Amino acid sequence: MKISDLGEFGLISRIRKLSRGKTSSTLIGIGDDAAVLALSASHVMLVTTDILLEDVHFDLSYTDYYSLGWKAAAVNLSDIAAMGGSPRFCLTALGIPRRTSAEQVFEFYRGFNSLLHSQTASLVGGDTCSSGHGLFISVTAIGEAKPDVVITRAGARPGDRIFVTGTLGDSAAGLEILQMRNAPDRDIRGRAACGTRIEKSEIRNPKSEIERLIEKHLRPVPRVSEGRKLARSGCASAMIDISDGLSSDLLHISEQSRVGAELFADRIPLSSALQRMSTILSKMPVRYALEGGEDYELLFTVPEAKLKKLHSLKLPVTEIGAVTTGRTVKLVDAGGKKNLLQAKGYDHFRNSVVKKKKC
Amino acid sequence: MKISDLGEFGLISRIRKLSRGKTSSTLIGIGDDAAVLALSASHVMLVTTDILLEDVHFDLSYTDYYSLGWKAAAVNLSDIAAMGGSPRFCLTALGIPRRTSAEQVFEFYRGFNSLLHSQTASLVGGDTCSSGHGLFISVTAIGEAKPDVVITRAGARPGDRIFVTGTLGDSAAGLEILQMRNAPDRDIRGRAACGTRIEKSEIRNPKSEIERLIEKHLRPVPRVSEGRKLARSGCASAMIDISDGLSSDLLHISEQSRVGAELFADRIPLSSALQRMSTILSKMPVRYALEGGEDYELLFTVPEAKLKKLHSLKLPVTEIGAVTTGRTVKLVDAGGKKNLLQAKGYDHFRNSVVKKKKC
Repeated sequence: MKISDLGEFGLISRIRKLSRGKTSSTLIGIGDDAAVLALSASHVMLVTTDILLEDVHFDLSYTDYYSLGWKAAAVNLSDIAAMGGSPRFCLTALGIPRRTSAEQVFEFYRGFNSLLHSQTASLVGGDTCSSGHGLFISVTAIGEAKPDVVITRAGARPGDRIFVTGTLGDSAAGLEILQMRNAPDRDIRGRAACGTRIEKSEIRNPKSEIERLIEKHLRPVPRVSEGRKLARSGCASAMIDISDGLSSDLLHISEQSRVGAELFADRIPLSSALQRMSTILSKMPVRYALEGGEDYELLFTVPEAKLKKLHSLKLPVTEIGAVTTGRTVKLVDAGGKKNLLQAKGYDHFRNSVVKKKKC
Repeated sequence: MKISDLGEFGLISRIRKLSRGKTSSTLIGIGDDAAVLALSASHVMLVTTDILLEDVHFDLSYTDYYSLGWKAAAVNLSDIAAMGGSPRFCLTALGIPRRTSAEQVFEFYRGFNSLLHSQTASLVGGDTCSSGHGLFISVTAIGEAKPDVVITRAGARPGDRIFVTGTLGDSAAGLEILQMRNAPDRDIRGRAACGTRIEKSEIRNPKSEIERLIEKHLRPVPRVSEGRKLARSGCASAMIDISDGLSSDLLHISEQSRVGAELFADRIPLSSALQRMSTILSKMPVRYALEGGEDYELLFTVPEAKLKKLHSLKLPVTEIGAVTTGRTVKLVDAGGKKNLLQAKGYDHFRNSVVKKKKC
C-alpha cells in the first residue's frame, strides 16, 4: 500500500493502532498537539534523543524494517538504562522517502513497539513527513528515576574498578559480516587482496554464531534491568552505555569524572562467536570491542567497598580495569605493556574507524 | 570554521556553551546519556515532537539560520501552548550536511535559544550527525501543566463559540513573497501569465508590511502566554494551534470533539498587510487563512457561559464561528451561503495546497 493512499493523518491513525498498550501514566497519547504524561511522585525525568540516518547508521539493503524499529527504540532506551532509569515513553520523528510502503512503516512500528512493550514503555507521540532523500529517524525516550539513584558519567573516583556487562565487539563484527555479505564480488576480492583472506563461504559459517553477531548488531537488547539494579543498589559510581566503542566511552567517563584509567586488554569479555570470526578474518578481536561501538552494553565503575554487593547482584558483568589518578587512559596488554588509549569510536564529523575503514 | 575541525564532541561542547540559562529544574543538562529534569510537584508533563526538513519545511535560499533555529523552537512551543501548558525543556536532533559551517550551526542555536529563553525554557540535550543529503531538524519540547487545566482538541460542544488569536494567513503570504523574490525570472513571468500580474518591484513594496508578513513566516511567536491564560481561566473547551491551516485544524477539532461547526468567512481576522498583498496578487486573502497554515495562532472554542470571562482576559482574539451538532464543518460566506469546508492544509504524503501549488 502506498503511504500517499493513506495520507499523513491516515498513517498516524494506523501507527496509533499499532501502539496500543499505553500505561496508566499516559493520560493523552498520540493524536493531540502534545502527549500528556504523569511521572511517579518524587521521581525525576530522564530524557534523551538519538538519530538513525539511512546510509550513516543503517543500510536498508541488509536491515529489515522490524529490526530498524527495534534498534531505534533500543539505542534510546540504552541511554535511559545508562542513567539507572526506567524507560516510560517514546516519541518518533520520521522522514519517510516516497519509495517506502505503508507496510514497511507498520513493520518499523511493530519492531519499535515490540521492544517498548517488553520494557513497559509506550509510544506517545511523534511527527512524520515525506523525505526527498533517505529515511531518517529521530527518537526521544523519556524515563524516570528517583533523584538519589541517577548515575552520571562524572562520579568515577581513583581506586574504583571498571566493569562492563555482557560481551563487547559482537555488534561491530555483525556489521562487518552484513557488509561483506552484501558487498559486490569485486569488493570481496579487494578485501582478500588486503590480507583478510575472506571468501563468502567462510563468512556464512558457522551459522548460529554468525547469526548471533548479526542479531547483536540489528536488534541489541538494552541493559535496562541491569542499569536499574546497579543504580538502586548504589554499586555504580559512574555509568555510560557503549555506543561509540569501549575506548571512546571510557574516555567520556575519564573526561567527565576527571580521572585516569587502566584497561586490561585480556580481561575484555569477548564472545566465542567473535573470537571465531576474528580468526577467520585474521583480526584482533579486542579491536572490535575497543573501536566498534553499538554494543549497547553498560560500562561502569564500582568503588572497592561496593564490590561484594555488586557480586551479590549476580549480574553478567566482567571487571576490566581500574580508575586511576591523573587524566590518562591506558590499555595494558597481556605482557603488562601500557599504551595510551585513544578515542577511535565513531565521530560523525570526522573519520570513523570501523564503519568507514578502508583496508 | 568547518564542523570537521571541531568534531562531533567539539560541536556539542560549543552548543552547550550557547545554551546557558538552564533553570533550576535542569538537574543535568547537555553532556550525559540523558538529561535529568524535575517537574513542578503535582504537574503533568506535555511532550511533542516536530520535524523541519530542508526543501520541505524550509528553503535555505531565503531562510537564515537564526530564523530557522527560532522557528524550530517556535513550532514545538506552539504545541505546548495549544494544550495550555508552560514549555520547560527542549531537545534537538540535527542531521547536518557537510556544506554547513560551524558558524551556521551556532547561529541556528542562537535563534533557537533566543526564543527558548524568552519563554523560560532551555535546551537540555540532543543528538547531531552528519547528513549526506539536506539539513534535517527534529525538536522535542517538554512542558508542564496542572492536570485539570490541560486543553485537548476533544472538548468542543455544540453551542460553543469558535475563536482565534491574532490574524491568519500572514505566514502563507510571507512564504509566497519569499518564493517569488527568489524565483528565477522565468517563473515570475510564468506567474504573470497565470494572471497573478506580479512584478518584482510590486512585491518589494510597501516594505514594512511585506517584512511583517515575512517575519510571521520566518520567526513566528508561539502564543504561550495566551494559551496558558485560556487554560487557567477555564474559558477554552477545546484548543489547537494553527499549523496546517484554519480549515484542516478546525476539522481536527470537529473530528476529535465529534461535533460540527460553522465558520464565518468575513469574520476571519486578516491583517492589513495581508489584505494589501492579496490585492496586489489578485487573490482572496481568506484563502491564505484557510489553507495556508504555519500561523501558529491558537484556534479554540468557548462555552457561552464563559464568554464574559474570556473578554475580561483582554486577549487579542476574534470570534469566527460556532460549534454545531452533526459532524459537518461549513464555511458561511458574506451572503449567508454555506459551503462544506474541506481540509486543504498541508498533508506530507499527498498534494499540498499552498506550498506546492502550481498556477
